[in-house]
Amino acid sequence: MATRANSIPHPTLVKIDPFTVADQQKGIHNRWHPDIPPVATVKPGQTFKIECIDWTGAQIGNNDCSDDIKNVDLTAIHNLSGPIAVEGAEPGDCLVVDILDVTPFEQMPWGYTGIFELENGGGLFAREFNSRACKAIWDFNGVYATSRHIPGVRFAGVSHPGLIGTAPSAELLATWNKREGGLIAEHKDAVPPVAFPPEPKGAYVGQDLPDDMREKIYKEGARTVPGREHGGNCDIKNLSRGSRCYFPVFVKGANLSVGDLHFSQGDGEMSFCGAIEMAGIITFSTSIIKGGVEKFGLKQPIFLPSPIDPLYSAKLIFEGISVDYHGDGKQYNMDATVAYKQAALNTITYLMKLGYTREQSYLLLSAAPIESHVGAIVDSPNACVTMALPLGIFEHDILPKEDGLQKRDFGQCAIRSDGVL
Amino acid sequence: MATRANSIPHPTLVKIDPFTVADQQKGIHNRWHPDIPPVATVKPGQTFKIECIDWTGAQIGNNDCSDDIKNVDLTAIHNLSGPIAVEGAEPGDCLVVDILDVTPFEQMPWGYTGIFELENGGGLFAREFNSRACKAIWDFNGVYATSRHIPGVRFAGVSHPGLIGTAPSAELLATWNKREGGLIAEHKDAVPPVAFPPEPKGAYVGQDLPDDMREKIYKEGARTVPGREHGGNCDIKNLSRGSRCYFPVFVKGANLSVGDLHFSQGDGEMSFCGAIEMAGIITFSTSIIKGGVEKFGLKQPIFLPSPIDPLYSAKLIFEGISVDYHGDGKQYNMDATVAYKQAALNTITYLMKLGYTREQSYLLLSAAPIESHVGAIVDSPNACVTMALPLGIFEHDILPKEDGLQKRDFGQCAIRSDGVL
Amino acid sequence: MATRANSIPHPTLVKIDPFTVADQQKGIHNRWHPDIPPVATVKPGQTFKIECIDWTGAQIGNNDCSDDIKNVDLTAIHNLSGPIAVEGAEPGDCLVVDILDVTPFEQMPWGYTGIFELENGGGLFAREFNSRACKAIWDFNGVYATSRHIPGVRFAGVSHPGLIGTAPSAELLATWNKREGGLIAEHKDAVPPVAFPPEPKGAYVGQDLPDDMREKIYKEGARTVPGREHGGNCDIKNLSRGSRCYFPVFVKGANLSVGDLHFSQGDGEMSFCGAIEMAGIITFSTSIIKGGVEKFGLKQPIFLPSPIDPLYSAKLIFEGISVDYHGDGKQYNMDATVAYKQAALNTITYLMKLGYTREQSYLLLSAAPIESHVGAIVDSPNACVTMALPLGIFEHDILPKEDGLQKRDFGQCAIRSDGVL
Amino acid sequence: MATRANSIPHPTLVKIDPFTVADQQKGIHNRWHPDIPPVATVKPGQTFKIECIDWTGAQIGNNDCSDDIKNVDLTAIHNLSGPIAVEGAEPGDCLVVDILDVTPFEQMPWGYTGIFELENGGGLFAREFNSRACKAIWDFNGVYATSRHIPGVRFAGVSHPGLIGTAPSAELLATWNKREGGLIAEHKDAVPPVAFPPEPKGAYVGQDLPDDMREKIYKEGARTVPGREHGGNCDIKNLSRGSRCYFPVFVKGANLSVGDLHFSQGDGEMSFCGAIEMAGIITFSTSIIKGGVEKFGLKQPIFLPSPIDPLYSAKLIFEGISVDYHGDGKQYNMDATVAYKQAALNTITYLMKLGYTREQSYLLLSAAPIESHVGAIVDSPNACVTMALPLGIFEHDILPKEDGLQKRDFGQCAIRSDGVL
Repeated sequence: MATRANSIPHPTLVKIDPFTVADQQKGIHNRWHPDIPPVATVKPGQTFKIECIDWTGAQIGNNDCSDDIKNVDLTAIHNLSGPIAVEGAEPGDCLVVDILDVTPFEQMPWGYTGIFELENGGGLFAREFNSRACKAIWDFNGVYATSRHIPGVRFAGVSHPGLIGTAPSAELLATWNKREGGLIAEHKDAVPPVAFPPEPKGAYVGQDLPDDMREKIYKEGARTVPGREHGGNCDIKNLSRGSRCYFPVFVKGANLSVGDLHFSQGDGEMSFCGAIEMAGIITFSTSIIKGGVEKFGLKQPIFLPSPIDPLYSAKLIFEGISVDYHGDGKQYNMDATVAYKQAALNTITYLMKLGYTREQSYLLLSAAPIESHVGAIVDSPNACVTMALPLGIFEHDILPKEDGLQKRDFGQCAIRSDGVL
Repeated sequence: MATRANSIPHPTLVKIDPFTVADQQKGIHNRWHPDIPPVATVKPGQTFKIECIDWTGAQIGNNDCSDDIKNVDLTAIHNLSGPIAVEGAEPGDCLVVDILDVTPFEQMPWGYTGIFELENGGGLFAREFNSRACKAIWDFNGVYATSRHIPGVRFAGVSHPGLIGTAPSAELLATWNKREGGLIAEHKDAVPPVAFPPEPKGAYVGQDLPDDMREKIYKEGARTVPGREHGGNCDIKNLSRGSRCYFPVFVKGANLSVGDLHFSQGDGEMSFCGAIEMAGIITFSTSIIKGGVEKFGLKQPIFLPSPIDPLYSAKLIFEGISVDYHGDGKQYNMDATVAYKQAALNTITYLMKLGYTREQSYLLLSAAPIESHVGAIVDSPNACVTMALPLGIFEHDILPKEDGLQKRDFGQCAIRSDGVL
Repeated sequence: MATRANSIPHPTLVKIDPFTVADQQKGIHNRWHPDIPPVATVKPGQTFKIECIDWTGAQIGNNDCSDDIKNVDLTAIHNLSGPIAVEGAEPGDCLVVDILDVTPFEQMPWGYTGIFELENGGGLFAREFNSRACKAIWDFNGVYATSRHIPGVRFAGVSHPGLIGTAPSAELLATWNKREGGLIAEHKDAVPPVAFPPEPKGAYVGQDLPDDMREKIYKEGARTVPGREHGGNCDIKNLSRGSRCYFPVFVKGANLSVGDLHFSQGDGEMSFCGAIEMAGIITFSTSIIKGGVEKFGLKQPIFLPSPIDPLYSAKLIFEGISVDYHGDGKQYNMDATVAYKQAALNTITYLMKLGYTREQSYLLLSAAPIESHVGAIVDSPNACVTMALPLGIFEHDILPKEDGLQKRDFGQCAIRSDGVL
Repeated sequence: MATRANSIPHPTLVKIDPFTVADQQKGIHNRWHPDIPPVATVKPGQTFKIECIDWTGAQIGNNDCSDDIKNVDLTAIHNLSGPIAVEGAEPGDCLVVDILDVTPFEQMPWGYTGIFELENGGGLFAREFNSRACKAIWDFNGVYATSRHIPGVRFAGVSHPGLIGTAPSAELLATWNKREGGLIAEHKDAVPPVAFPPEPKGAYVGQDLPDDMREKIYKEGARTVPGREHGGNCDIKNLSRGSRCYFPVFVKGANLSVGDLHFSQGDGEMSFCGAIEMAGIITFSTSIIKGGVEKFGLKQPIFLPSPIDPLYSAKLIFEGISVDYHGDGKQYNMDATVAYKQAALNTITYLMKLGYTREQSYLLLSAAPIESHVGAIVDSPNACVTMALPLGIFEHDILPKEDGLQKRDFGQCAIRSDGVL
């Protein structure tokens, strides 16, 4: 007979409260540093769960106003759970991580996508759009998300951790800080900034630590914004539940940390806070391949995607090249970023013909399972990038028709209380 | 009863000989210019075929030496068939083109992928690899390609035209030449060049034309290397047989031209002559949506992909960020091109652990149905790009294993007669 | 800020304890009858959850012995949660049910697949194999299942309710009982029985009911084994989380009941208790299409499959025809059931060459995401049916090789304590 | 340079004329017999082509009247090309056949689907519909088929040989004739017949043969209608171009024959002449696995499907059970054939609500890439079978809608000149 005795749940190694600000909780940190001690240790082969607060640490609410986005404190992100040490892992090994599941908390069946202010966070089109804070709240209905702020769409989540990585060694950390510092120096007054140096303000490690260790971590710890050699904030939508990832190990125990869970995201995560950000629970198991860094030539993680990533085979695909034809017409030299932006702007234009506002379109492309491929990157001077809208996520038929596109009224996303857009 | 009388083949509107150099053939041109007259006119709804010579115009042979690649004349490419006028198409309309099939000639069941010399054509890694001419010959066995120069792989072709587009208006042509001229001026001595200005040498229109018209076309005609607002050399692998494409129309009749057929290609077409280049036959039908440019906000073509694009669901995915960690370690600012290159170099490293040479790996990633996604393009300063190897194209299991990777001897691709690599 | 106040969980309308036998719990019933009152009422559009005990009502344990399977009481199955009434639904309407999620209980991360005794439950090959009780326990690791009783495989669950349906009208119930009674009469002594008549023994409705109503339900209530016009035990694996189903409505309120949750199942559910049976939670929302039965010609439910059904594109496919070439060689007349059986026996033979026992093979094909297509059903006298093994679920390469198949030792599944097989 | 000399086409081993009746052509046969000598011999590894006449041998014309279907001579079908011997193949070996491509003749870009008369050919619903001859002509436009007789649909072909197999040994042939003879004896007066005995009338081998050998073959040769242990007329749509098939070998040389090419077909091939029947060209290569029958336990072919089978992920799925609720309401015992029929009738009903006639619906489900799965085959007494309509093949949105289905006028398929339906 089925009994409680023969039914052993998988252990939860980090528990958090999604409704309490991050820096009042244990098992959370928001900088990368080799000296952050592990909060738990697992054996290879063991299945375990980690709870994660949303990346802002509960700063954003389920409401119809974007003032919380406007005022978000970005020194205090991204809040990661961990680190988790794996028995036997040593520098040079490969840590195999099975991402077995990624789910929201039952008590918090919603997430959000935000457009940040030009001066506070930015995003891909922060300058082009002179961005003001906007957001969309998404309701989670099982495997699907819908939004009262972006009606007419429903899609299955390609749920994944936006941020997952092993701890850097002291040497690797120094490399990061040096190279990013150089870039910052070259672009001193950029708005938004091109990169973020170590910053004690907002730094947090939710553990009892000696003061000097804490000070060192806060002073040297790498910021969590970019992805790097250890993984980090790669925001790859297909590193989703069901995938298997191979990480290089840089410190004893590997010290895996994870956070910034996404219910869904489009390729590119365009608006920066572009995924459907959520608090939730991630389930892992791990194994170790000794000497895997050398065996597989790992300079960055590699992974096997999930067999349950959402499949929408019918798509409408937009192209873009490295000419800023939506702006000043400037010709760029094989610049895939510019090409991505044109493809995105072409898609936004199309969505606006269907009745979505520019802000809704920007949010939707950020959050839905949009696919962006590098088409060609050798046909000088124009890189070509594509962006694919899955038709199956729309309630209505959005295909090009003889009579043009039917424009509907989809309202607007959540905006600032002062109405500024 | 089935009879010849009740079985009407689709007409072939441009016929070429794949074994004769391009500039001795009719119905071919290799520059973009509004004044090139159509060679045929079709009615909307009609199915028709166009024969295309390979992009070099028969310069490359089915042999085991890359000297033909080394010495290729690049002023005489890409050889396009057409233009084909569509009755009723006018500027501002949308020309709907169904790419119904793309096949090699029965009498020429092979194609090639080339690495060009740094000084003659280049390619994505021309400088990093100090590229010398290499090639792989691919045999076409029905829907599959295999190569004696890259053993151990077989894949179904995602067959497509590398180059397809409507004719530019005089105004659009002027815009292209101006903006690309500006870029060239900024990078005068770049090797390989960053862009290509109009060049009468090698220019060709295989029609009887008045001398002054020919001279004008040759002098002003845009080069065919990059993709642009009209389509052109976008090299999008999924614009494949079975897809439907919506082109903006810039001149009366639309004047569609096509060439540079590819049996297969990976996202990015990395080595420049990176697809499996072939001569062959493309089947089309067309329709017109009046005023479609405005109706759909077309700044560049959009398309619906094919239901028969090859599906290999199991993949091994490599990541890359905008740090040149394979080179001098330089930090770039949100540069997706650099990120693509790191993902590619990570993949090449892995393939070399399996026993492929660097040249074979470079050619394979260019030619096989590799998928490259823009992962994230907002996590300053690192863009993240992924590259996916489909497992099903390999004869052997290439997954990461406890014991590392089994290194096999796959020989080498075709190289120069002087043995220089 | 994210708060408990702005985070409203979806309500759970039926709560059960997976470790308590079914007939001691509320909100459960195990017969179909129009008079069973709804236990809750929902409004169209509302998302809600229903907890379900496993189909046997906790009779099977997580252990390594199949005696519980041998002794299972089949009069007391399948235990359904509900009925749930939907406001406004009337006979002739179509009840649209979104199956939004199907998950196991966190405290019970396992399920089972069983082979039943020939004399107690049977199964497709009960007679051919003279079946004795066997089982495999499956561990749920996020979206994946693995089994200590069938090593070497891991697969993503195509999780679904084996049994879901609207309540029958009195008239429909009478039709069922009459037609099945006729069949039983024709095959009086069949082992296993060909069908199951109403049976008060084991009948259960977990509600306070007047005695005469309870007696009537127990006496007339249709057994839950077969699928019928209202849905019921159709055991369609692709009616999975993420699918949308359109049910005919036969009584006021529609009165939807659900149970027999499956973590995974192969097409056919071969061994009868062939899915991975589990207790768990199903999430729904509903809507009503007035007069939908007539509008869509519904004689049985129709549905839209889920975009997250597991995708394993590489497969090895076995064929079968309606000749019993694994048995006495008898020629059947266009019998797809016989053809399915041959395809299954061909697959079992192959799995045994790989080292799985016959029992493991039978259980694996029942539980894993095996696809079985009707190939052809008109080529007299042989129907042809196929069965596809997804390659990606196996840890090892199982493809046919020059040297034959490598036979490994996978042990055995759980068998009876007396060792009888 | 590309030259004719370095471009060697694959050889065509059997050439036919699609416009000449079969029994006036060489290299064709229409019975299975071990004594039919090979018409060509290939080495393992060689790529080669085989031309095939349509299965009726040019009896059906591209016109708008079904009288040719009504009067078709079915003793003279299916016309196969071959046999082809493979060097080194011996009984007990496994013949690996790569189906590299299947295409129509360029000069015959059309095919047909037929409903046969109840008394001349039948089909799955011959009795239910009291079938009179109907047909649809399909135009091939590259990878797509469309029909003037069934407007509003377009789909990519899952092109395959309906009929492919190795030659039987004398012993296997005797087994077939004996067991099918038994069935015929049991159902002497069935209309349509349940099986077909050897029949010299209409038998044909397009080779110079000694009279006694010819007589023996004609007298004993197995009819080609059903699939059997050697493959044969399995009509499996996914044995398509790009698939790899493993056949058991029964005679020296294997003696592979092929015919009955289909441009497309739905699972089940419902109307018997239900695929899109065509004349065309098939491309093969082969290899041999010695002793493969024993190594893989082959009782019938197994195969690997193609990566380019059409993918239409969005579907509307119909269910059916083994109760004849479209007819007399009879309860069958776990009969998957009856369940398939109900699923098909439910789908036909739905298509008729959209405006297709019953005949058009029957033809469409036979010819389009419909998927039919065995849902469950153990829930006594009802087998459950599903049938999936791919949404992407329809020009209009066919999903169930609040307002019901929009009924359009699609005309009618080709019918008899006397107008009898």
